Amino acid sequence: MHPAPDPEHALEVLTDLVRTDLEACNRLIVERMQSPVALIPQLAAHLVAAGGKRIRPLLTLAAARMCGHRGQRHVALAACVEFIHTATLLHDDVVDESALRRGAPSANAVFGNKPSVLVGDFLFARAFQVMVADGSLRVLDILATASATIAEGEVLQLVTQNDTGTTEEQYLQVIEGKTAALFAAATEIGAVVADRPPVEAEALREYGHCLGVAFQLVDDALDYSASQAALGKTVGDDFREGKITLPVLLAFGAADEAERGFWRRVLEDRDQAEGDLDRAIALMQSRGTLDATIRRARDYGARALAALSIFPDCPERRALAGIVEFCIARAR
Amino acid sequence: MHPAPDPEHALEVLTDLVRTDLEACNRLIVERMQSPVALIPQLAAHLVAAGGKRIRPLLTLAAARMCGHRGQRHVALAACVEFIHTATLLHDDVVDESALRRGAPSANAVFGNKPSVLVGDFLFARAFQVMVADGSLRVLDILATASATIAEGEVLQLVTQNDTGTTEEQYLQVIEGKTAALFAAATEIGAVVADRPPVEAEALREYGHCLGVAFQLVDDALDYSASQAALGKTVGDDFREGKITLPVLLAFGAADEAERGFWRRVLEDRDQAEGDLDRAIALMQSRGTLDATIRRARDYGARALAALSIFPDCPERRALAGIVEFCIARAR
Repeated sequence: MHPAPDPEHALEVLTDLVRTDLEACNRLIVERMQSPVALIPQLAAHLVAAGGKRIRPLLTLAAARMCGHRGQRHVALAACVEFIHTATLLHDDVVDESALRRGAPSANAVFGNKPSVLVGDFLFARAFQVMVADGSLRVLDILATASATIAEGEVLQLVTQNDTGTTEEQYLQVIEGKTAALFAAATEIGAVVADRPPVEAEALREYGHCLGVAFQLVDDALDYSASQAALGKTVGDDFREGKITLPVLLAFGAADEAERGFWRRVLEDRDQAEGDLDRAIALMQSRGTLDATIRRARDYGARALAALSIFPDCPERRALAGIVEFCIARAR
Repeated sequence: MHPAPDPEHALEVLTDLVRTDLEACNRLIVERMQSPVALIPQLAAHLVAAGGKRIRPLLTLAAARMCGHRGQRHVALAACVEFIHTATLLHDDVVDESALRRGAPSANAVFGNKPSVLVGDFLFARAFQVMVADGSLRVLDILATASATIAEGEVLQLVTQNDTGTTEEQYLQVIEGKTAALFAAATEIGAVVADRPPVEAEALREYGHCLGVAFQLVDDALDYSASQAALGKTVGDDFREGKITLPVLLAFGAADEAERGFWRRVLEDRDQAEGDLDRAIALMQSRGTLDATIRRARDYGARALAALSIFPDCPERRALAGIVEFCIARAR
């Protein structure tokens, strides 16, 4: 398979391809986040208005169409995926005490932690109501399991935070949970809603899983290399929180005794001073761990592309392939 | 219908009646809160070990048996109800910054806010996985809707907090959401799992709803009158947080200008000094608002008993009637 020629525009290509479905999905999102309790749609709209890329619902919409689905059920299910994603963002930002999200002040910064926790709960419950209305126990199973796996990944991330003894395996388990699980569910339900055989559901699941891992690997590299504008959040957030991501983990593994002392001070003791982030970035660059992280992302990207190969060539398959390149190209 | 003669022991009577089912439910709860991420069962066990009364799952178990259910499905559904309840407790305690829960240090006090939020999410997702395994879309609908309603009630509680302009109607909306919705769902699914006609599901829903409202009214009165040991949490918590509950709302409505100034200072400005809680309790006693709150609870209790009257007399019906008395008798 040849990758899309222009990774920068791959998101636009995908968006254009399912534009009608996406607009229906966006309408449904606004409609279903309503509540007599006005603060709920106000807070939810803050995130919706901040304009996420809607990557996950786009994946559901395109996967369903690629699988030949002709109805509208995938629109509601894509909205469920976005509700679950939004709920996890709200809770993540409370847990991480983030000030920025998608380049704008985070909901917890504007509305406080309390409504962020509760509106997250509301959106999560609402996602399940929408799934119940759709009526597929298989879809409910996939998204309930993904939701549990996300929470497990987030808790494991908390446990490994500030622990330079974290292994690559644990790190992978964290990102498979917190990110890849929902990508995998989002794409798998495309095949399920189109009533395709297990081999296609499995292939789409593998595609979403590998794409999600690649996406998070790039995100974790960007946290030490991007401009704030490109990242939509504060650069160095992971560093300040002492999150043990792959670039850090590899740098710690390759470090000499003095460097290890530095990493332990800044990440375990969280005793950070002016210039420490710059030193961390310099260490990663000298050890090549940011590049190594991106190479790892490319490996997962290649697996994602390979998983698509069982589907016949079509605009949707090309668009889904393009998204792999898009996710990795963010690292440039 | 005659009420149970001995309200203090009504909970034991109910527990004894469905003991085998409850033990199976408790085993399932422990089994299904497991995760490879050890902190999850550790934190969940903290709450489970603190020994809740398991009122909600008991209601599901007894309602199902009263409706003639002979299988074991109700055991798993009772566990789902308890998981959802536990998830909301974890998030509530974060939101309320509570130090005590069920007479023991709260999970957020022991483990911190972050894991409490995330383990709450896990238990919520796990509840939906267990429901999916049961396979009833009707049950999923009832519990997904209850979950959304709970979140709405909690958000509304946050909005009305510190606002002495809160109306009785708003207060009722808060407690119908945060408490009665899950009681109503817990009892309704007893009829659903037994495949009984809508009129019985509706009657059990009404019973649970009215019982839940009565339960919360008594709780709100106890916050100003119980001993800490009886309440299992800190007396005066609502007062310190400026929660506008019925005893306060009625006292504010009956207050003269000087008293209104007091209520505004302590609840709206949260400018509280030594002796203010005692003064608040004295004002409520002089206006009779704690008694009025309990009377209101009795009215709802009577409605709950009336709803049971369509079921033939049996040990389960008598036990469920006894629980109404039990909830109200806590106020003595």
